[in-house]
This record gives sequence, C-alpha cells and structure tokens, in this order.
Amino acid sequence: MHFNDLVTSVDKENERFIDDQLKEIDPGCKILSEEGMGTKDLSDVSGHVWIVDPIDGTLNFVKQREYFGIMLALYVDGKPTLGYIMDCVNNRLYHGGIGRGVYVNGKKISAPENLSLKEGLVSISSPLILEDVRHLQEVARHASGLRMYGSAAMEMIGMITGELVAYISYLKPWDLAAGRVLAEELGLTVKSIDGTTPDVLSSNLVLIATRQVSQDIKEIID
Amino acid sequence: MHFNDLVTSVDKENERFIDDQLKEIDPGCKILSEEGMGTKDLSDVSGHVWIVDPIDGTLNFVKQREYFGIMLALYVDGKPTLGYIMDCVNNRLYHGGIGRGVYVNGKKISAPENLSLKEGLVSISSPLILEDVRHLQEVARHASGLRMYGSAAMEMIGMITGELVAYISYLKPWDLAAGRVLAEELGLTVKSIDGTTPDVLSSNLVLIATRQVSQDIKEIID
Repeated sequence: MHFNDLVTSVDKENERFIDDQLKEIDPGCKILSEEGMGTKDLSDVSGHVWIVDPIDGTLNFVKQREYFGIMLALYVDGKPTLGYIMDCVNNRLYHGGIGRGVYVNGKKISAPENLSLKEGLVSISSPLILEDVRHLQEVARHASGLRMYGSAAMEMIGMITGELVAYISYLKPWDLAAGRVLAEELGLTVKSIDGTTPDVLSSNLVLIATRQVSQDIKEIID
Repeated sequence: MHFNDLVTSVDKENERFIDDQLKEIDPGCKILSEEGMGTKDLSDVSGHVWIVDPIDGTLNFVKQREYFGIMLALYVDGKPTLGYIMDCVNNRLYHGGIGRGVYVNGKKISAPENLSLKEGLVSISSPLILEDVRHLQEVARHASGLRMYGSAAMEMIGMITGELVAYISYLKPWDLAAGRVLAEELGLTVKSIDGTTPDVLSSNLVLIATRQVSQDIKEIID
C-alpha cells in the first residue's frame, strides 16, 4: 500500500470510528472533522460542536511512526468546553475542560510557570520561519531555543506541560480546538497573531504562549 | 538548586562515572569528554580514544526532561570504531560498530532506505536556518518537512532509524562521534558541509544524510 493511501485510510477509519462514537454519546451534536465526514456545510457554532483530528502530524505518522496524536474537542455555542489530546506512542491522554482542570492519564497537572521568552523554548512552524512571517525569525532569536516537532498535538502537549513557552503556527480548526481548551484552562494565552480570539470554524495564524511570552512577542512583531 | 547548577552537576557526575568506567575496561585509553575531565591537551588520535557526551541536549534536559541522550564512541587511530547512544527517557540503547552492525536494545536494524530530499524530513539546527548559512533555508524548502529536536543524540537516532533523511548542524566532537559510527555503518554519508571527512578532535559543520539526499543537497548549496 502506498504511503498516501495508507494515511488516508487510517485517517478515515479513525474519523469514522470517532464520529460514530460521538453521535452515540452526544446525539444531535454537530461534528467538524478533518476528513470531512462530519456535519455537512457546518457554518454556525450553536449547540454542541465536536471538532475532530483523527491523526494530527500525518507526515510524522507516515515517516516516523511517532510524534503524532489524536485530538478532539467540544465547543458549546462556540465556547471552548472540553479537550482531549492522545499521545498514542507514549500512551498518554491529556484531557480537561474549562473550569474542570487538566489531567494527564487522570492525574491533575498544574499551570506552567509564567516564563519569559528568553527563559524558554519556542516552537514556530517551518513555513513561518522560512518566510520570516511577522518577524518570527527575530522572535526565535530571542528565545532559549527553537523547536519544530511537526505536529500540533505534540507542540500543544509541550505547551501544556511547560516544555515550550510559545507555539506559533497556521492552524486549521481541528489543529487548534483541543489544545485551546487545555491551554486556556491552564492560564495560557491563545490568540490569533493580531490579538483577536481565533475563529472556531476557520484557519488562524495562532500564538499560544505564557502571558509573559505573549507580551514579549507582541513587542517584537508589532 | 538553580537549573544551570543542576545541569552542570548532572553533566559532571555522568562524565566522572563514564570516564572512570572507561579507564577500568580500557586501561591506557585517552578520553575526550565534554566537561573536560578526560585526557589533558588531547591533540593526537593515535591509539584508543573514547569520546564522551555525558548529557546531549542539555537545554532539553533542563526545560523538558525529554529529548536528550548520552553518547559515547571509540575511535582507534582516528578511525570510527564503536558508537553508543542512550535514549534515556525511552530506555533505548542504540549501539554498533564499523563492520559489526547497528542494534536497538540488542536487536539488529537494517539500513535506512536511500530516499531523496523531497521524500523525507530533514533536521537543520536553528542558527543555520535563522542565518541562512549555505542556502540551508532553500534545502529545507525542498524537503518534505523541517524538524528541530534540539539534541544531536535525538537527531542521530532519527537518522539511524530512517525517520530523518538529513541532519545538518555545527557539531562538537562529542556531538558527532557516536552517531558518525552508527550512521557510517548503515551506509549513510557523514561529511563536513564542504565534502571533507570531519576532523575527530574539532567542531565541524556536518551533513549526515542518505547518499541520495547528500547529492540533492550538494546541488542546492554549491
């Protein structure tokens, strides 16, 4: 089987499985999922909207068989509510909800320290660095170090655990939805690069960061 | 204990332990190790030279408690001979030698496929990308994707397992020594960026790659 066929097949199988389960546990919900098997022409966020990434880090999954994850999130009337990120290789489930805390395999974790840019590692996706979008090369120079894992799930886990102090990438709805819930619950900033709240149904150039790093970066890119 | 003190302390303890063991199993050997506790003023590579990195990926070790490793290598009369990379977090030992094969936790692995640049993921260290040394931004654009893990040990493991098709970084002797043995044994190219054989006792801007990727990159940077 060709790599591209393989990944499409696994992506689709996962999505079908997750979507079916969601319809069972939350009848009447809407589903926005990467492979498009969810609700047709979803254009409003009223009620329960589940956002599903059946495999995030597809290229890593194909080339490396690690550094990928499965993400799902519940948004209620457009508001971040529940988030789940599964690190399949390390068998770790990160889950939580707004007002409910964040957990790794059931164990509650505390908020990451409010570090500054120079004190931490940042992840910025390669197209943004290579094209030097919004002076992000300069942002990288001000950090302790630059990392690129190639999977929003992995970078989001880095943010939640405090291993990264910022993650900047152009993200589709299913890349952002789960991580946004967990990051916001832990007091991290999740904004479009221009400071607005990311749109739930659109792609956004997003900055997830500690509050201090969010300010530090704003000074460089503005 | 401050982070910097912590890492210096763990680095030094590891180095002392490894150096002591080496002196016991290979009496009369010379030792080149990162923290400088090895042979004083080592300037010739005759005989047995062990090259030791007690913690590679120090910043990751401090900030993340993952993505770091321990590396050691034996060079005999300047020739790559034995190499060991320990992925501590995942409890995996990569070891091997020239003419002896390469093993993960004792299980022999086969040579990575001779993929081309556009078929694979590359790791290029952030200073080289940010300063666009030798047109390496263009190299990154030609690859499937760009990754940065921030630890030579981790990137070398990526090369050995075929998860990466190239790794380009400015490497100190202890960053390169073990990975070079394992990579060469698996038929990968290990050269200074100008095509010469890396000097065992100096820092080198090094390209480790599949044979095909080595040619693909040469065409871009020359």
